[in-house]
Amino acid sequence: MKGLMMDCPLTVTSLMRHVNAQHGASEVYSLTVENPAHRSTYAEIFKRCAQLANALRRLGLNRGDRVATLAWNDYRHMELYYGVSCMGGVLHTVNPRLFPEQLQYIVNHAEDRYLFADPLLLPLLEKMHEAFPAVERYVLLCGKDALPESSVPGLISYEELIEGEDERYDWPELDENTASSMCYTSGTTGNPKGVLYSHRSTVLHTYASGLSDAINLRSADVVLPVVPMFHANAWGVVYCAPMVGAKLVLPGPRAGDPEALVAMMNSERVDVALGVPTVWLGLLNYLDASGRRLETVRNLVVGGAACPRSMMVDFQARYGISVCHAWGMTEMSPLGSVNAPTAGSAKLDDKALLAQRLTQGRAPYGVEMRLTDDDGNELPRDGKAVGRLQVRGPWVARRYYRAEESALKDGWFDTGDVASIDSNGFMNITDRTKDLIKSGGEWISSIELEDVAMTHPAVSEAAVIATPHEKWTERPLLIVCLKEGASAEADELIAWFEGKVARWWIPDGVRFADELPHTATGKVSKLKLREQFIAGGAAAS
Amino acid sequence: MKGLMMDCPLTVTSLMRHVNAQHGASEVYSLTVENPAHRSTYAEIFKRCAQLANALRRLGLNRGDRVATLAWNDYRHMELYYGVSCMGGVLHTVNPRLFPEQLQYIVNHAEDRYLFADPLLLPLLEKMHEAFPAVERYVLLCGKDALPESSVPGLISYEELIEGEDERYDWPELDENTASSMCYTSGTTGNPKGVLYSHRSTVLHTYASGLSDAINLRSADVVLPVVPMFHANAWGVVYCAPMVGAKLVLPGPRAGDPEALVAMMNSERVDVALGVPTVWLGLLNYLDASGRRLETVRNLVVGGAACPRSMMVDFQARYGISVCHAWGMTEMSPLGSVNAPTAGSAKLDDKALLAQRLTQGRAPYGVEMRLTDDDGNELPRDGKAVGRLQVRGPWVARRYYRAEESALKDGWFDTGDVASIDSNGFMNITDRTKDLIKSGGEWISSIELEDVAMTHPAVSEAAVIATPHEKWTERPLLIVCLKEGASAEADELIAWFEGKVARWWIPDGVRFADELPHTATGKVSKLKLREQFIAGGAAAS
Repeated sequence: MKGLMMDCPLTVTSLMRHVNAQHGASEVYSLTVENPAHRSTYAEIFKRCAQLANALRRLGLNRGDRVATLAWNDYRHMELYYGVSCMGGVLHTVNPRLFPEQLQYIVNHAEDRYLFADPLLLPLLEKMHEAFPAVERYVLLCGKDALPESSVPGLISYEELIEGEDERYDWPELDENTASSMCYTSGTTGNPKGVLYSHRSTVLHTYASGLSDAINLRSADVVLPVVPMFHANAWGVVYCAPMVGAKLVLPGPRAGDPEALVAMMNSERVDVALGVPTVWLGLLNYLDASGRRLETVRNLVVGGAACPRSMMVDFQARYGISVCHAWGMTEMSPLGSVNAPTAGSAKLDDKALLAQRLTQGRAPYGVEMRLTDDDGNELPRDGKAVGRLQVRGPWVARRYYRAEESALKDGWFDTGDVASIDSNGFMNITDRTKDLIKSGGEWISSIELEDVAMTHPAVSEAAVIATPHEKWTERPLLIVCLKEGASAEADELIAWFEGKVARWWIPDGVRFADELPHTATGKVSKLKLREQFIAGGAAAS
Repeated sequence: MKGLMMDCPLTVTSLMRHVNAQHGASEVYSLTVENPAHRSTYAEIFKRCAQLANALRRLGLNRGDRVATLAWNDYRHMELYYGVSCMGGVLHTVNPRLFPEQLQYIVNHAEDRYLFADPLLLPLLEKMHEAFPAVERYVLLCGKDALPESSVPGLISYEELIEGEDERYDWPELDENTASSMCYTSGTTGNPKGVLYSHRSTVLHTYASGLSDAINLRSADVVLPVVPMFHANAWGVVYCAPMVGAKLVLPGPRAGDPEALVAMMNSERVDVALGVPTVWLGLLNYLDASGRRLETVRNLVVGGAACPRSMMVDFQARYGISVCHAWGMTEMSPLGSVNAPTAGSAKLDDKALLAQRLTQGRAPYGVEMRLTDDDGNELPRDGKAVGRLQVRGPWVARRYYRAEESALKDGWFDTGDVASIDSNGFMNITDRTKDLIKSGGEWISSIELEDVAMTHPAVSEAAVIATPHEKWTERPLLIVCLKEGASAEADELIAWFEGKVARWWIPDGVRFADELPHTATGKVSKLKLREQFIAGGAAAS
């Protein structure tokens, strides 16, 4: 027997309609190249979405066509998010920091028909456009007057494109399984793989991210996603903030500039901000050096890589700001887990509580997790057993775009992470499968060693990689950047590990670097470190 | 083009699986006739759900069969919620306070095959069972030893039923549109009508109710639903609290006893409690009279009827407790709106803020609202225009059980309420369509008049009904109960309205009553008031 409730598809369109009706007046602040403080509202943005949709229809966009963006976090990018998906197109956000060969692969693999780019990325477009034969139209995200002379054929400005178009659009009633957007994973091996989100997956992810134990956004809040809109939907904030009516602060091209971030956070009264550890480390160092303070921020959500212990401690101790650890991946829309206390957390001592807060947290309803050994046997959720982390749920990818094969094994998606899960569901990633150090038949977690190294007062960033070893198979090598003006010897750093980890985990050597190489998504590139520090390392990885 | 995300049905079963994995250790406290402090956990409850499902399979329950409950809020009722729905049956919660003829109609109309009842309701069963020819099996929610001799044929205890059954059950993968549960509306006119919820509608409603601006439950919270599980799913709390891992406190048959509630709230450290105004008025009066305090409660959610202004003010002023106004109906699963502040609320003065907090609040994403005039024309959302409130969304009923016709007009469900909506989405119910007083061609809101009367220090409860009037069609009549020991004359009460409402709204007369009649769901029965105080009133209603 079927229920007798209304049949309403879960679409981004229904979200837009809700936001228009309930939260149209909520503000969106954007920094762009043209304007250091552009102010708009959701209602104004959705009117411009309609203009954009009318313009794209005029250009001949068909249902399912891909529209690429190479853009920072700002209001025009947001208009593309809603305008393209709600008219039945597929928004393809492209990471402008990818290598040219990756960009070329991705844009061609997705067969993008239109490409919208930030003016700062025009040099990239000029260099690349001949490598994008399928792209019919290039649009620069700026006003008519700001459009420079360019070698890109037919380039027009966004404002010129939408100018004079009707502010209403007859948004279609889409099936909820219609594709809404796509994003390629920047895998460190092989070609990038396209994840194709649906309206349904996006809506369900938005609900989950709005829960009190997830991003916990309220209508009265102000939220700043430093995490880019070109990567994994800015962790869903561009959907979740409008859903609840929170004010959005979009940092445009200044997302990596701590001084600009602090200015925006204080002037716009930001409550919650989200980003990767590298960004928050930069912010912490800037605060320490400048003596400035964050006047309103209560919560920094950190994801994309493990949160260093020292960062969590220092933000709390020096600035009274809570750092909330979250975890996800492009294939998961991206939300996988968020760290929020249970009733039992209040009974933990400071050390145990910090240990709990440093885990990746707990899966919201909608994400199922399990651990398996290499043979696919499920492991216990006892906080001790460490195994492959597998996930499933309505916002987890089942297949990559244009792939023949399923991305699943036995109905589960293998995250490539190695983790434990305790009886309360706190999940702790001990390593990426491929970054683990296998020594004497046992695993050593590179992340745990990095975490210890980061607590040393002279260390600003640290990475541990495996070096081949005749007897033990592999042994850990520590690579560190020192803080400006600080000094430390290798011996001293090695000694720092004593009593903090098992003796056989202690790295065999230390190398010093001026800076660590990062991937396009801001993670430390262990691939490059191996190339740099290990003879034949790239081949061994 | 379709998205490529996993196809995971939205089912109560998936919710149960999530709770088991993540929040199995969270506590459920229940008061029952047998036990004033029964303690369990979600994990234990779900084991017993499996035993229940095995027992029901043994009894021959088929997919889609209805299982009725006549029960208070306790752990066994919760086991029926999950066990019946997840095995593919339909849980039919029946309000034990209904009149016998309504009970007879409902149980027979639903064709319930099994009926589970609280021991306190055995006398009702003994009186009624012959009127339920379709019911094959009666189960009393108690242990074997607590089962009394009874005239109900084949009566067994719940514990005997499930004893020895396997604690595992191979829960089926259900289509998400499968019916999960049903509840009949206790309409004041005509026969009750059955609302048939689906797994999908229940899951989506659960997400929305967990949002920070809705019920705002966290894992570390303790929540007490005074609102009964036999009526509109206890406002979804029995799904939402487990979803986030919050501790549940279930008051059993003592939900209407302020002394018992205060004891439970303090001993179990309750953060959030939900109920109708009558319950909270009783609690307020008890606190005032006893000098006791609530030690941990931060939020009382009030719905089911308009929250009296004085109650909101007094709880805040005397006890530091925030009263949150919410609104819904059985046909809406039931959540329709919750009152939470916007960024603009902080700028309001005390009076304007209170006025905003007294509205029914804002619709979460998933509920669309509109106002229409009598001809179906949409009215503006300007906070002034008053019209019929219509809703739609994935947890709104489209048709009643066994009804031929749709319950919708033009795709919208008419709530029977008359309301305004302001530009920020705050919805304010001014009356039920049928309780409005039509005077001189204009509408007078009975609710607003009741609210003014309730601010008079001598008044404990008030109701306003329409009396026929030759010249003005109808005129308002005020009916009041005075507080114990208080006195007030009719003239004085009439004078109380001066300057507070338009002169022509002021009631023409006052009648005093020892108590007001309430419906089975705790609302003041205006039908009975009309019968009691107006010559030919019942006919006129």
